[in-house]
Amino acid sequence: MREWEKNIRRVTPYVPGDQPKGDRLIKLNTNENPYPPAPGVLRALREMDYDRFRKYPDPAASVLVRELAEHYGVGENQVFVGVGSDDVIAMSFMTFFNSDKPVLFPDVTYSFYKVWAELFGVSYETPALDERFAIRPEDYRKENGGIIFPNPNAPTGLLMPLETVEELVRSNPDSIVIVDEAYSDFGGTSALSLVPKYENLLVVQTFSKSRSMAGMRIGFAIGQPRLIKALQDVKYSYNSYTMNMPSLVLGAEAVRDDGYFREMLEKVIETREWSKAELTRLGFTFPDSMANFIFASHRTVQAGELFEALRANHIYVRYFKQPRLDNYLRISIGTREEMKELFAFLETYLSAR
Amino acid sequence: MREWEKNIRRVTPYVPGDQPKGDRLIKLNTNENPYPPAPGVLRALREMDYDRFRKYPDPAASVLVRELAEHYGVGENQVFVGVGSDDVIAMSFMTFFNSDKPVLFPDVTYSFYKVWAELFGVSYETPALDERFAIRPEDYRKENGGIIFPNPNAPTGLLMPLETVEELVRSNPDSIVIVDEAYSDFGGTSALSLVPKYENLLVVQTFSKSRSMAGMRIGFAIGQPRLIKALQDVKYSYNSYTMNMPSLVLGAEAVRDDGYFREMLEKVIETREWSKAELTRLGFTFPDSMANFIFASHRTVQAGELFEALRANHIYVRYFKQPRLDNYLRISIGTREEMKELFAFLETYLSAR
Repeated sequence: MREWEKNIRRVTPYVPGDQPKGDRLIKLNTNENPYPPAPGVLRALREMDYDRFRKYPDPAASVLVRELAEHYGVGENQVFVGVGSDDVIAMSFMTFFNSDKPVLFPDVTYSFYKVWAELFGVSYETPALDERFAIRPEDYRKENGGIIFPNPNAPTGLLMPLETVEELVRSNPDSIVIVDEAYSDFGGTSALSLVPKYENLLVVQTFSKSRSMAGMRIGFAIGQPRLIKALQDVKYSYNSYTMNMPSLVLGAEAVRDDGYFREMLEKVIETREWSKAELTRLGFTFPDSMANFIFASHRTVQAGELFEALRANHIYVRYFKQPRLDNYLRISIGTREEMKELFAFLETYLSAR
Repeated sequence: MREWEKNIRRVTPYVPGDQPKGDRLIKLNTNENPYPPAPGVLRALREMDYDRFRKYPDPAASVLVRELAEHYGVGENQVFVGVGSDDVIAMSFMTFFNSDKPVLFPDVTYSFYKVWAELFGVSYETPALDERFAIRPEDYRKENGGIIFPNPNAPTGLLMPLETVEELVRSNPDSIVIVDEAYSDFGGTSALSLVPKYENLLVVQTFSKSRSMAGMRIGFAIGQPRLIKALQDVKYSYNSYTMNMPSLVLGAEAVRDDGYFREMLEKVIETREWSKAELTRLGFTFPDSMANFIFASHRTVQAGELFEALRANHIYVRYFKQPRLDNYLRISIGTREEMKELFAFLETYLSAR
């Protein structure tokens, strides 16, 4: 081993996910939206001023911040944007979680919380979900250096009622509580309504799911101005230009067309509710998802077997080989046609068994 | 002060740079390229498949990596891309600079090296440039945890000869040596030719200057496969999707048209050489820049005064209020017309004084 190799940061090696390519495949493994962004985004793309590429983008991301502030009825000084909610949350860990007390998040949740905590040297504890995969609010009534959880939770899709969220924020006045609402547009009740009341609450959302823009990498946080200022100070202190010009221009455009947004959401929700009925009919059980995926387990057939059978037939869903999760499939909600093909395959497969 | 406020990371408050807006201004303060990217970029923009926005971008950035590998005649496993060279260099600090020994970089150089070292808790030393602003190679022949410097250096534009770079890489086999070549396309000799010979060398470049794409946020590193693999492992371990789809597609397109690229470079270099003559005629002295800017000091008039006078006339250049630098202006090379206006103003101003 070379001397310089000793100084290379040790990390858990990356295992690339399935990146299936081809025409005839059905991709229900990454919770992408089956519908494209608003038509205005296409128009803005075609009209984009390409001479502006040579200039640095606006580090304040004003066009996008302004649109989000207006849309959510908050001040522009209450919005922080980043390169996907991963960037926003990582920055939030770096900004707010600097005490010696452990940060709290559920044992079954978005896998990157643990990664960021380790990356930034933040101690953490992971209270276990109850036997029905619900967060136990009482686990979060202890001394802590911060709290973060997704609502709805991942990969279960389970929603925590707004009153419980509020109780959690209220009972932790000494900590920043981050509610990661990546999936809340699909039927959750956002904690945004609590922002005026609680200065320790930060709500994070993303354009990757409900806004059909995973490819653009846009996430944002909304909170009281003091929290947003702290995030901006940290961000500007070490990288001023992260959001590129197309993400600012097209992101703003996506927010403008609320009618289209609601229409596409409605379609995904309808398909999800119909899919729940289909899955039940096929012998699956699942937590009652309010997200754009269903976390389902079959009564008799192992999830690992189904995962392989589906993949062999070019239908991709997500399977977690982890204790407690390894008899479930996380199935993203695609178009009605994609779901029909999935259920047709499952019906044939299960009845032939 | 609230309890949670005590846990907010303390950073040096951000002082936003001039973001002048308006039609009649001349912006020579951020080293942007005065010419747009290749026409193929515009074509690719107009033809971009907007339905792909809803999907996650390729985390391996293959289309861009492949194009860069082909262009520079290296393997695809020798190229790492990031959100601007700021992202690539920050990631390199995180990946390679983990020893207890100090990392070395010049006292006068790109200001973010110090910021990243502090952010990631890396100790560092900053050997002073000599009286003519040149790096003294002998300062880098001591025990260290890594070395980084721009070539040409910023904000001086001074180029270190390739033999000196090689000597520095060769005499530090136990350290990773990062050559930050943000400006090297404008007349420098790239250290890329040394990559096959030295496994401890990492060369970083950017699309922001020579490739006219500051607005797209693209940077890259080239080194031997082992270094690139280490960078990828760290990057993937905590954020898989950073480069958005337009940056991958349009970045690849920008690399394809080498003819246009060389033509635009030639124009900037020509304007720079002519500008040197003009500045000399007007009574300025400057290190002999090989970048797309000139770091100039007037023989009799203070730089601070000139900076203010220029700004009052809507001509923006960069002024650093720092010891050793505070009698210099960093003037980006714009179009010939923009430079003519600058010199006409200076001529009038200086003769009226």
